[in-house]
Amino acid sequence: MAKVAILGFGTVGSGVYEVLNENAEGIEKRAGEPITVSHILDIRDFSNHPHSELFTKDFEDILADKEVTVIAEVIGGKTFAFDYTKKALMAGKNVVTSNKELVATHGAELLKLAQENGVKYLFEASVGGGIPIIHPMYTCLAANEISEIFGILNGTTNYILTQMIQNGQSFDVALKNAQELGYAEANPSADVDGIDACRKIAILADLAFGKQLSPDKIYTEGITNIDLSDVKYAEKLDSVIKLIGYCKKDEDEVFARVSPMLIPKGTALANTSDVFNAILVRGNAIGDVMFYGRGAGKLPTASAVVSDIIEIAVGNCAKIMWENCGDDFMKDISSETASFVVRADKSFTEDKAKEIFGNITVIDTDGEFVFATNSVKEALMAETAKNYPIKKYIRRF
Amino acid sequence: MAKVAILGFGTVGSGVYEVLNENAEGIEKRAGEPITVSHILDIRDFSNHPHSELFTKDFEDILADKEVTVIAEVIGGKTFAFDYTKKALMAGKNVVTSNKELVATHGAELLKLAQENGVKYLFEASVGGGIPIIHPMYTCLAANEISEIFGILNGTTNYILTQMIQNGQSFDVALKNAQELGYAEANPSADVDGIDACRKIAILADLAFGKQLSPDKIYTEGITNIDLSDVKYAEKLDSVIKLIGYCKKDEDEVFARVSPMLIPKGTALANTSDVFNAILVRGNAIGDVMFYGRGAGKLPTASAVVSDIIEIAVGNCAKIMWENCGDDFMKDISSETASFVVRADKSFTEDKAKEIFGNITVIDTDGEFVFATNSVKEALMAETAKNYPIKKYIRRF
Repeated sequence: MAKVAILGFGTVGSGVYEVLNENAEGIEKRAGEPITVSHILDIRDFSNHPHSELFTKDFEDILADKEVTVIAEVIGGKTFAFDYTKKALMAGKNVVTSNKELVATHGAELLKLAQENGVKYLFEASVGGGIPIIHPMYTCLAANEISEIFGILNGTTNYILTQMIQNGQSFDVALKNAQELGYAEANPSADVDGIDACRKIAILADLAFGKQLSPDKIYTEGITNIDLSDVKYAEKLDSVIKLIGYCKKDEDEVFARVSPMLIPKGTALANTSDVFNAILVRGNAIGDVMFYGRGAGKLPTASAVVSDIIEIAVGNCAKIMWENCGDDFMKDISSETASFVVRADKSFTEDKAKEIFGNITVIDTDGEFVFATNSVKEALMAETAKNYPIKKYIRRF
Repeated sequence: MAKVAILGFGTVGSGVYEVLNENAEGIEKRAGEPITVSHILDIRDFSNHPHSELFTKDFEDILADKEVTVIAEVIGGKTFAFDYTKKALMAGKNVVTSNKELVATHGAELLKLAQENGVKYLFEASVGGGIPIIHPMYTCLAANEISEIFGILNGTTNYILTQMIQNGQSFDVALKNAQELGYAEANPSADVDGIDACRKIAILADLAFGKQLSPDKIYTEGITNIDLSDVKYAEKLDSVIKLIGYCKKDEDEVFARVSPMLIPKGTALANTSDVFNAILVRGNAIGDVMFYGRGAGKLPTASAVVSDIIEIAVGNCAKIMWENCGDDFMKDISSETASFVVRADKSFTEDKAKEIFGNITVIDTDGEFVFATNSVKEALMAETAKNYPIKKYIRRF
């Protein structure tokens, strides 16, 4: 029998408990042994819980129990999670987690620590909620050299953008709706500022390219500046605006970015609406594969955490490692090229735009001067926006 | 060093050889050891191949080599493949395969034989070509009770239907194009008659529900009867026609079917065009997840075969088993309910249709009488088609 301790009894933690109990029979069959929760760590009072005897406020209780072989760290954040995870791994306990912040910032170190202690650190739930993506990348796609990964990695922002696109809601109204539906937090910054998507693309790039990317070095732009005019201009280009996480390997350099982008209608990414996520992986043998589903939510995320627990019971043999080797291999986006939709003041003329960008496509001259560039250097776009009355620019995919 | 023997040097076999060579460095890193091809079995003459020394016409050469630990059976069909696979497993060699026919018909027996001999029988490439689906089902989705699986499982028929829908090509013209592009075989029966999709849905159901379904007991209808009028009527219902493999668990019974269906536009399945496959899995924790990509082709399929080889090198610990326990648990489709689009002779009146089916929606009365039923029993539809001048009926999803 495998004994599991759950750290944090919030949304995901209670989901893990629920899935382990509800699906106990099938899980036992697939794991080859029963999996039971022996401890739940939470500082709050759960003395009224039907299984209040499982709760503890002291992490040492869990560390001291030699029968606990797997710890599910679903606290989130770094403060306690990092410390507990290190202690657990050093005590020879396997750790599974949904904590994207911790994996993105300290993954290399924790994977190394796990290896040194002969245990596993698994994090299927850290990207895409319940969508299988981490595991397939190091198993099913292991025969490939992966060159690019991109997609819609955050359900909250995708819900907000979908409301703006399909129902003409303003950003503020759509955000408020998302909060009422429980899709967005009271403080929505991690989602709407792109921080969550940034951590996820960092983890995917780490795994695909073998080197840890510092999330704070990844160019990250959220959706707080997107307004209904942007949606309208995108529509004129037969496109929709999506928040896209993107990473690419170019020789020994890796390039990563999170930003709103215009996605042509009719494509799989444009068709990914509401809270759904879609992640495309491009490999040299497989071509493109896409993983699609709900990227968040209590039970889908718990499903992924529990799948890692089962993996450990069955005996996970995978070698998941990436190196922490500084940031030098991370390429600045300024040298990349892209086509942009530019919203400028009318004093910025078509002639001026052509002088700077070469050929352009005029989209609108009502009130402001809106145009699309051909493929130009990011640096040129940024520089021009600094020196001329340009309100904003959005990349086209 | 792991030594691999490839059985059959056709499209997939030569792809496996190519992927193992091209991506050797990355594969060695992920597998933890170099993986080299030591034997290739093919009855044809490859004396001009740059590595002609690898070729043999005698399977016993491979069996006798104790260093060969993995055999990639990519011959296809059952005649030789079944015999070789059994012999290999009994000789203590792991077998990986893309052979959906063999897995669908003899999977339970071969998995048991593998277990008895302490080796693995893996078949990621048998469904969805390179799309990760088999492996994620028994790992990432292992915390779920799976209730339904459905999707577009055959790229050839999806290409043909896409041509009919988007370019107004007749079935015959679209098939001819598919053959010219190498998407369809000279004898296209396995694809266009739904046999290939039937084997794939059988394998997915086997894996999800733990019992082997006899492919020949699965209701299977191909696309040879679909014409441009069907496409037009679907359009009137804002739908497109797709060949759908479907399976569902209902208490202890399993229900499976392959048939053309009307899929509402705007959905992920309707948007899956050309040779792409899309497979949806519904679990009680995860909700719906979808796997999407090219379902066939030399390198994508080889990518999946090689991923299984790497799995074995790394040490695959999964318990993949299903039972062979007769067909009694397979539910007949006649008791299922569905909504149908019915094409009848004009002598079959609206009044008659309403008398039999209750409320109906008239779609066309030009030349023939075309209508859609509400949800009715399959048995009622089949019985009515037998007794009245009904030319054909197509299910709506």
